[in-house]
Amino acid sequence: MDSQDFREAAISSIDEIINYYDNISSRDVVSNVSPGYLRTLLPTSAPVQGEAWATIQSDMETKILPGITHWQHPNFHAFFPCATSYPSILGELYSAALSGACFNWICSPAVTELETIVLDWLAKLLCLPGCYLSTGSTRGGGVIQGSASEAVLTAMVAAREKYLLETVPSDLSEEEREDVIAHKRAKMVVLATNMTHSSTKKAALILGVRFKSISVRAEDGYALTAPVLASALEECRAKGLEPFFLTATLGTTDTCAVDDFRGISEALEAYIYPPGSPGEVWVHVDAAYAGAALVCPEFQASTKIEQIAKFHSFDMNMHKWLLTNFDASCLFVRNRNWFVQALSINQAVYGNAASDGGLVTDYREWQIPLGRRFRSLKIWFVLRSFGVEGLHGYIRRTVKMGEDFAGWVKGREDLFEVITGPAFALTVFRMVGDGEEMRNERTRALCERVNGSGRMWVTSTLLDGSRFAIRFMTGVRSTEERHVRAAFELLVEVAEEIVNKK
Amino acid sequence: MDSQDFREAAISSIDEIINYYDNISSRDVVSNVSPGYLRTLLPTSAPVQGEAWATIQSDMETKILPGITHWQHPNFHAFFPCATSYPSILGELYSAALSGACFNWICSPAVTELETIVLDWLAKLLCLPGCYLSTGSTRGGGVIQGSASEAVLTAMVAAREKYLLETVPSDLSEEEREDVIAHKRAKMVVLATNMTHSSTKKAALILGVRFKSISVRAEDGYALTAPVLASALEECRAKGLEPFFLTATLGTTDTCAVDDFRGISEALEAYIYPPGSPGEVWVHVDAAYAGAALVCPEFQASTKIEQIAKFHSFDMNMHKWLLTNFDASCLFVRNRNWFVQALSINQAVYGNAASDGGLVTDYREWQIPLGRRFRSLKIWFVLRSFGVEGLHGYIRRTVKMGEDFAGWVKGREDLFEVITGPAFALTVFRMVGDGEEMRNERTRALCERVNGSGRMWVTSTLLDGSRFAIRFMTGVRSTEERHVRAAFELLVEVAEEIVNKK
Repeated sequence: MDSQDFREAAISSIDEIINYYDNISSRDVVSNVSPGYLRTLLPTSAPVQGEAWATIQSDMETKILPGITHWQHPNFHAFFPCATSYPSILGELYSAALSGACFNWICSPAVTELETIVLDWLAKLLCLPGCYLSTGSTRGGGVIQGSASEAVLTAMVAAREKYLLETVPSDLSEEEREDVIAHKRAKMVVLATNMTHSSTKKAALILGVRFKSISVRAEDGYALTAPVLASALEECRAKGLEPFFLTATLGTTDTCAVDDFRGISEALEAYIYPPGSPGEVWVHVDAAYAGAALVCPEFQASTKIEQIAKFHSFDMNMHKWLLTNFDASCLFVRNRNWFVQALSINQAVYGNAASDGGLVTDYREWQIPLGRRFRSLKIWFVLRSFGVEGLHGYIRRTVKMGEDFAGWVKGREDLFEVITGPAFALTVFRMVGDGEEMRNERTRALCERVNGSGRMWVTSTLLDGSRFAIRFMTGVRSTEERHVRAAFELLVEVAEEIVNKK
Repeated sequence: MDSQDFREAAISSIDEIINYYDNISSRDVVSNVSPGYLRTLLPTSAPVQGEAWATIQSDMETKILPGITHWQHPNFHAFFPCATSYPSILGELYSAALSGACFNWICSPAVTELETIVLDWLAKLLCLPGCYLSTGSTRGGGVIQGSASEAVLTAMVAAREKYLLETVPSDLSEEEREDVIAHKRAKMVVLATNMTHSSTKKAALILGVRFKSISVRAEDGYALTAPVLASALEECRAKGLEPFFLTATLGTTDTCAVDDFRGISEALEAYIYPPGSPGEVWVHVDAAYAGAALVCPEFQASTKIEQIAKFHSFDMNMHKWLLTNFDASCLFVRNRNWFVQALSINQAVYGNAASDGGLVTDYREWQIPLGRRFRSLKIWFVLRSFGVEGLHGYIRRTVKMGEDFAGWVKGREDLFEVITGPAFALTVFRMVGDGEEMRNERTRALCERVNGSGRMWVTSTLLDGSRFAIRFMTGVRSTEERHVRAAFELLVEVAEEIVNKK
């Protein structure tokens, strides 16, 4: 494929993509292929001779798109959004063209420097405390990770090393030190709640450290509070366990609850005083989805985001609700040295004057992988193309649709009960009925039937271990009020059928 | 940015990208900006109002490109290539448009199924033993990871869990079991050589397990051999350590050495017999760069790739030498259940009929992150667009240039000494001189001066802890023989100046 071939192929691809976006609502939201559908359509090995682009491209519509679930579809109300936008796609395009394994500053200074700059822009936009900026006095800063899972793993490794550095005496022999560490590792424990995203548990599993799940209460809105945390810390102490890491969530997966950041600080201060003492518990804030709402001052206030100044790391995914292609998980740390001391590995072949002189940031020391893509480009394009006002408008519009939806649901208390929300464009509700079993059965049937229609996609969850509920999310950019209204009407129609045993 | 704006912006971006590729050789290879250059050129926060695309795009040439080191430049002879191609860029474009967090099969069946299929295509193309195919009898298969570092970490977690499952008695109480595991963890050790890529050491650091570096010998061509491994295993046994993981390399970073796979098997079989016994050492093959050469039968034969049938995992980066954009690290495992048993985490919100019924692959259980991009598209486009013959042609052409280069270097023994290679388009050489110190000084000066010219970029390494050497790689797609010839002439010119003390 030479330059001219590429130009034609690219323009044709662009046109297909535009056509896909312009007509996405004519497709079913969820793919309805059967497992194994694609193997029957493709050859069993790569072709010996190269194929023409037109042949390859024609397979996109006929073989690939039938197997796509459309995350940009206006009737996608499942999980959280994975919002993209045209400026972001352009960022991916340039990033692909400028491909390099940019593990060091010198491997492309712009890749490192733009990342530091746009993450400072983002930190300011979200009104994160100044300690998370690269220019702040605590030597903080941001780094783009592939996912919130990698972010929490990175933070947890840094937390473990920090904890060991602070609590293992420095005057031991190598052998004594290894004994103490082995002994400590068996007692160190990661804390999270039963509403915390599974990535924290997975990170603990990967590191091979204990994991303790703290049950939050429905009456606290499924948020972690000071007394609940304090009692979990006491339980650990009684068992001789050493908590070193806690994930606090801003917008839990199930219900978009926001943990009580001030309460968490108070409970931790009572446990180890003062904050910053050796052996303090690292607090990582998982704001993967709802962190996007912090672009609006009203959510900075309602979540009390200023309280996280005492915490250690904060992560939000621009690739969920902030119009940026997967992947763009933005991880901020209060002191970047915590990452470097845990993740720095030197190898002769990577030596260079700028790195060796300590003049620059080498992001390979802030992450698990070595190489990295130029992901800050798409964030830069999105922030500039939409502007702060454009982002405000988008977040507020999707939140408003969630409020409207929740209002309509509440208006039909003969059919539905709102369990939580609306919170951050998410409403969690279920059907009413005599007793838990009937409510669950009805809600399950409702979920299956509306999804089976192909006209919308919602996902479900199980609260308190037994309450089956539907999550309805209105964050997708193409979703308009009319789509939400139609979805609500479908829900009512099916719910009435269920109540009337049709 | 509406559809029409996007069309214009995208076409203009495509034209800029073509222009960039067509004229890349007119640029200096390595960026010569100073640390912090970009902060002085950009505002300190995101704009309040959205900006026009033309404004954003014009910053690419004026502010970003000066900070780019050009990995696609024909005079890029540093590290390993990070080769891209037009079909691969189109794959990234479609992937960006179809953005979703495809953690489950149902989140887009095509994303999972195409990945399984093209990784089978690739396994066949590389002539990997059948056990690494998804259709093989051992239930193996491939998964795309972001980098070789994530691949080795994933394999190491799986290896640790497999080892513990096999060696910790199953009839213990919970408390006894935790004690045994804590005790074992303190003794478990990861093995690698001093030529193994640092990602293995980093993975061990992340998991918090011991790491033992085995020194390989210059007389073995810096490859790991049976007697060297056997003696390391005995050393571990004598110290009461328990080796559970070994990285074997096909194409080391420093010199592109290939470890002796048969010898490794023999040493391991003598250590724990028979292979497959409980507590066997997991062998991960890191073929990140040179694995690409396996598309050619001559390299399948010379590396004895059939020997890895007794090993456990194999990883190669299509994003290095196989014309596919970063990131596309292709990890194969002999039994996918090893990944699933180590990395599976269930959360109610992800439940769905296809997953719960065990009908499909959910790649989130084969990796650290939850969500994932549609990365198989670009691999599919590359394999189809180039065809097997196209890939043969490219690999052989770049290998041939490496052989030519090494030949020329050998032809000037008054100036140079080839230390290793040519191997997989990599030659490692240094300047001659009286004594080690003079050789090192001269070689260091040569490296600095040719890089300082802006006309090429080579990287260096330190062999045996003291021999400074230049690595010269000819794998970039735009590199032609004339570029290699010119680079050689520049090296000669500068070397003569150094010898003549100019």
